[in-house]
Amino acid sequence: MKKIIFFLLLTTYSFAQVDRMEPPFWWSDMNYSDVQIMFYGKNIAQNEISVSNGIVIKGIQKTENPNYVFVTIDTKNIPTQDFVFTFKNKNKSFTQQYSIKSRRENSRNRKSFDSSDLIYLIMSDRFANGNTNNDNTKETIEKVNRSNKDGRHGGDIEGIIKNLDYIKELGATAIWPTPLCEDNDERGSYHTYGQSDVYKIDSRFGTNEDYLRLSAELHKRGMKNIMDYVTNHWGYNHWMMKDLPTYEWIHQFPGYAQTNYRMASQFDVNASKKDSNLCMDGWFVKSMPDLNQSNPLVLNYLTQNAIWWIEYADLDGFRVDTYSYNDKTAIAKWTKSITDEYPNFNIVGEVWMYDQAQMAYWQKDSKIGAIQSYNSNLPSVMDFTLQEAIHNGAFNEDKQEWRNGIVKVYENFNNDFLYPNINNLLVFFENHDTNRINHIYNNDFKKYQMALTLIATVRGIPQVYYGSEIGMAGDKGLGDGDIRRDFPGGWTGDKNNAFLKSERTAEQEKFHAFTSKLFNWRKNKTVIHTGKTTHYIPENNVYVYFRYNEKESVMVIVNNNPEKQVFKTNRFSENIKNFKTGIDVLTSVTMDLKNDISIDGKSVLILELK
Amino acid sequence: MKKIIFFLLLTTYSFAQVDRMEPPFWWSDMNYSDVQIMFYGKNIAQNEISVSNGIVIKGIQKTENPNYVFVTIDTKNIPTQDFVFTFKNKNKSFTQQYSIKSRRENSRNRKSFDSSDLIYLIMSDRFANGNTNNDNTKETIEKVNRSNKDGRHGGDIEGIIKNLDYIKELGATAIWPTPLCEDNDERGSYHTYGQSDVYKIDSRFGTNEDYLRLSAELHKRGMKNIMDYVTNHWGYNHWMMKDLPTYEWIHQFPGYAQTNYRMASQFDVNASKKDSNLCMDGWFVKSMPDLNQSNPLVLNYLTQNAIWWIEYADLDGFRVDTYSYNDKTAIAKWTKSITDEYPNFNIVGEVWMYDQAQMAYWQKDSKIGAIQSYNSNLPSVMDFTLQEAIHNGAFNEDKQEWRNGIVKVYENFNNDFLYPNINNLLVFFENHDTNRINHIYNNDFKKYQMALTLIATVRGIPQVYYGSEIGMAGDKGLGDGDIRRDFPGGWTGDKNNAFLKSERTAEQEKFHAFTSKLFNWRKNKTVIHTGKTTHYIPENNVYVYFRYNEKESVMVIVNNNPEKQVFKTNRFSENIKNFKTGIDVLTSVTMDLKNDISIDGKSVLILELK
Repeated sequence: MKKIIFFLLLTTYSFAQVDRMEPPFWWSDMNYSDVQIMFYGKNIAQNEISVSNGIVIKGIQKTENPNYVFVTIDTKNIPTQDFVFTFKNKNKSFTQQYSIKSRRENSRNRKSFDSSDLIYLIMSDRFANGNTNNDNTKETIEKVNRSNKDGRHGGDIEGIIKNLDYIKELGATAIWPTPLCEDNDERGSYHTYGQSDVYKIDSRFGTNEDYLRLSAELHKRGMKNIMDYVTNHWGYNHWMMKDLPTYEWIHQFPGYAQTNYRMASQFDVNASKKDSNLCMDGWFVKSMPDLNQSNPLVLNYLTQNAIWWIEYADLDGFRVDTYSYNDKTAIAKWTKSITDEYPNFNIVGEVWMYDQAQMAYWQKDSKIGAIQSYNSNLPSVMDFTLQEAIHNGAFNEDKQEWRNGIVKVYENFNNDFLYPNINNLLVFFENHDTNRINHIYNNDFKKYQMALTLIATVRGIPQVYYGSEIGMAGDKGLGDGDIRRDFPGGWTGDKNNAFLKSERTAEQEKFHAFTSKLFNWRKNKTVIHTGKTTHYIPENNVYVYFRYNEKESVMVIVNNNPEKQVFKTNRFSENIKNFKTGIDVLTSVTMDLKNDISIDGKSVLILELK
Repeated sequence: MKKIIFFLLLTTYSFAQVDRMEPPFWWSDMNYSDVQIMFYGKNIAQNEISVSNGIVIKGIQKTENPNYVFVTIDTKNIPTQDFVFTFKNKNKSFTQQYSIKSRRENSRNRKSFDSSDLIYLIMSDRFANGNTNNDNTKETIEKVNRSNKDGRHGGDIEGIIKNLDYIKELGATAIWPTPLCEDNDERGSYHTYGQSDVYKIDSRFGTNEDYLRLSAELHKRGMKNIMDYVTNHWGYNHWMMKDLPTYEWIHQFPGYAQTNYRMASQFDVNASKKDSNLCMDGWFVKSMPDLNQSNPLVLNYLTQNAIWWIEYADLDGFRVDTYSYNDKTAIAKWTKSITDEYPNFNIVGEVWMYDQAQMAYWQKDSKIGAIQSYNSNLPSVMDFTLQEAIHNGAFNEDKQEWRNGIVKVYENFNNDFLYPNINNLLVFFENHDTNRINHIYNNDFKKYQMALTLIATVRGIPQVYYGSEIGMAGDKGLGDGDIRRDFPGGWTGDKNNAFLKSERTAEQEKFHAFTSKLFNWRKNKTVIHTGKTTHYIPENNVYVYFRYNEKESVMVIVNNNPEKQVFKTNRFSENIKNFKTGIDVLTSVTMDLKNDISIDGKSVLILELK
């Protein structure tokens, strides 16, 4: 027996090889041309490493774990080619091929999403099951169980592709699916924020090629693919967690400590170091080890991974999870590297705060950040205070008070000057982490209309969440599963298929028709995408604002009063100017602006001025 | 009869004279040396004007109202002297003496209030009636009526002077009496924000000389006199309102229009001009015409008046009413002129907003203001968000939640970096326009202790409001009169005289003793005045912060939990460092910092670390 064991060990050693190589390939003519390739294999760091084709090795970095070696090669000005790394230890050696591929035409200057877009957020596991063959896969632990609201339901990339026409017809122009890379947790893996392999699409969602096909199918339709990227943490089943490249790859206390979630500690001059460090370095939850972005190996890894996905999958943007939980300095470098590579690439970060100065702090070139000499380089942040106003029931407040009712919405725009780029704010009233609007407002269609009109007509990039357009509700109080219900019709055998007009209930169709009409109108309205805004202090719970440019002018009226309101137009003369009539986008009714305007209780008017 | 009337008219004309001359005198060696003297008299502008003593007239400005003429003289480098203006029309002439006085020694470099001070805010009519002879005066309309809660009660300067020792013993070092200049309104004149003569103390409060004596008596005690100055508006009975110097002296629509009070419109890039103009130019209330500070004559008048009072009454600071309702550009000039004249002079503006970025906008050298190239020049603003946290019942919230309980207080300090000068914030939990704390917390002594400890130990300049130190309550819901009750003992015959320890009730003494102990301790604690702050994220509704400098360190613990809390000190090691013990300021009990700290429910510890 002893002999056999010895032989086996020897074999393992003799046949040492590369088990993982990341990034798996790169491209010629990249700005990020010093590629640091991570090789993983048993005692791989004990080898001498050389490379063919005259490629220059700029650095070899080892850690205390001999199973990893980081080799930096210079790909500047080298053509597309395959070449070979040779790993040699004494008389033994093995090789590993590497490829430098050619980029898509004009890849560097790819367009990205902006305020002309409207983003449809999809909980990937819960939208549509397009391929039942991948509901369970050998290599992944958690199996499909649609009866478990916290389990996997089988939604996949194929399901999204099959319904792109539905999304397009709704009037959305971009999709943001929740993360699609592998999350091999035993439980709760469906949301996929605890990833186990960030170079590989989860096999239950499809393949890397499927993801690439998703981009292609979107682009075919003039639509955009926004990847949900997670820099802050991985899942505890990430392959590296079993054999850390270095102790410092993740934040350890040792092991787990939970973040305090008090993100304000990141700029609070009074904060104790203990608090601010724990916020940044603590783990989001116990199952998600917190990555140490301030370690250059980790930062490089994350940067290359991000660029790799953009280039590989032909992406149009990132949504970055838990942006403000990352190491502040490092994440700014990460973001800059990406926009240095793709100057037009838009990245929206989840900066979940309820204070405009605090949110503005995180937007690129912020004057607020500059107070602390900080520039996050993050092009876009999320307008969480608008979300809060709607979330906190502004539309249930029938009577305007000093700070209540529609005033909550009005006040949100008072501080626009704090943001360096107001058109690059994500505007939304819900996402996959909040109550659904149809829960908050008890499926009140009128309130849905008001909320939707707002986000579709104010400055910024509207984001909607799958299903609300057919009246889906969801109560976060019942757990995340409830706000992430399956889209009806996404599964074979669903009794109700809301993807098809013919099968929608009357109630679903009511929501859908309004949504679709509004979104499709917005699609080509430059005046909404990039026009200026003038708003008026609400009176009698009625909020009036104008979006305008040199060519067009739109007057939006949101009546949050349950009673019909009639008012004179002369108060708005600085915006109405010489316009004579307003044509309501929703009803096509023409109104004479000389006359009083009459608007029903809890309703909206969107008037194109002529 | 006809003859007599003609004669009378002729007489009026023949004996034309100066009815008003403002400022009534000036000083040599002032920075503001081009003095624009307003002469008021029947058809005074029809005269040729000359001046004796070789004084240079730099400009004569007339308006459409011939009863006013504005004469600018150059007082630079001219010595103290009296000289004479001559007004000549055809063969008639008359003269008016003017004086250039000498300044107090070191007047320019006078000290002002700062974070080493503690300000006692007094509603002047409601504190103490020191001189019953001036309760009613011939020249003023409204008569004393102590039974009317909105009427005049007879408080006066003499009453304040008589109780300065009380205020000093309490531990306050500065007073801010509500305005003392004449307010000759028929009703509600007691609050004196609608002034009728801004060069004259209201005769029911005393004389200009009494006011000067108030400063002297304060200075004798090492205390400071802060004037409540109103730039935004005067009363409708102001003498000029009956004969406006120019139509544009006040904002007219024509006549009255009410401000919308939406101060955010002053920086809101989306605001309609109509809204932002109405906010700034509209009247605060109908009885208070809104001054047009953007008119150079008005601005000059207000600037000179302000400087005149500082120099005349030997003032130590201003509190400026409704600062953000003034013309933004003009008020910044006004403020700069004053601080150019008195470089150390502190001015705190009422900027009543509930958003830190919005408040920080108005503080001198604000980076937030700079986004719009605005610098208010205002050295100090009021920490209204701290007031809001306490006002909104933070101490009634027994259980800490994400944004409730003591977290509301903690969160207030997260944004300190937005303020250019954090030590120059006024910190307070109530003033004469808000509910009293003892109403909000139903005279709960423990909650009073927590609130008072906070404002006495956090960064900034504490401001307290007369009477709360003896447990006075007041409900704004019952009208302003209720939050402005008479201080017991301020009137002869008051059954209870809370100025005297011997006559205080046990309840009053309980409040007073605590207040006095805390304030007197603060008096010489440089570490509280200017020390740095480190605070810790609250746990179990307990808030811990440290104030420290190179010499001293103070640990403040506010337990907002109704239960006793016991916690380890190791979490605070970065502040506890090598300190061994903490001595409680309130009980003198010594605590060993190696041991757990135990603190009773709803209570505070202020530990001086040794």
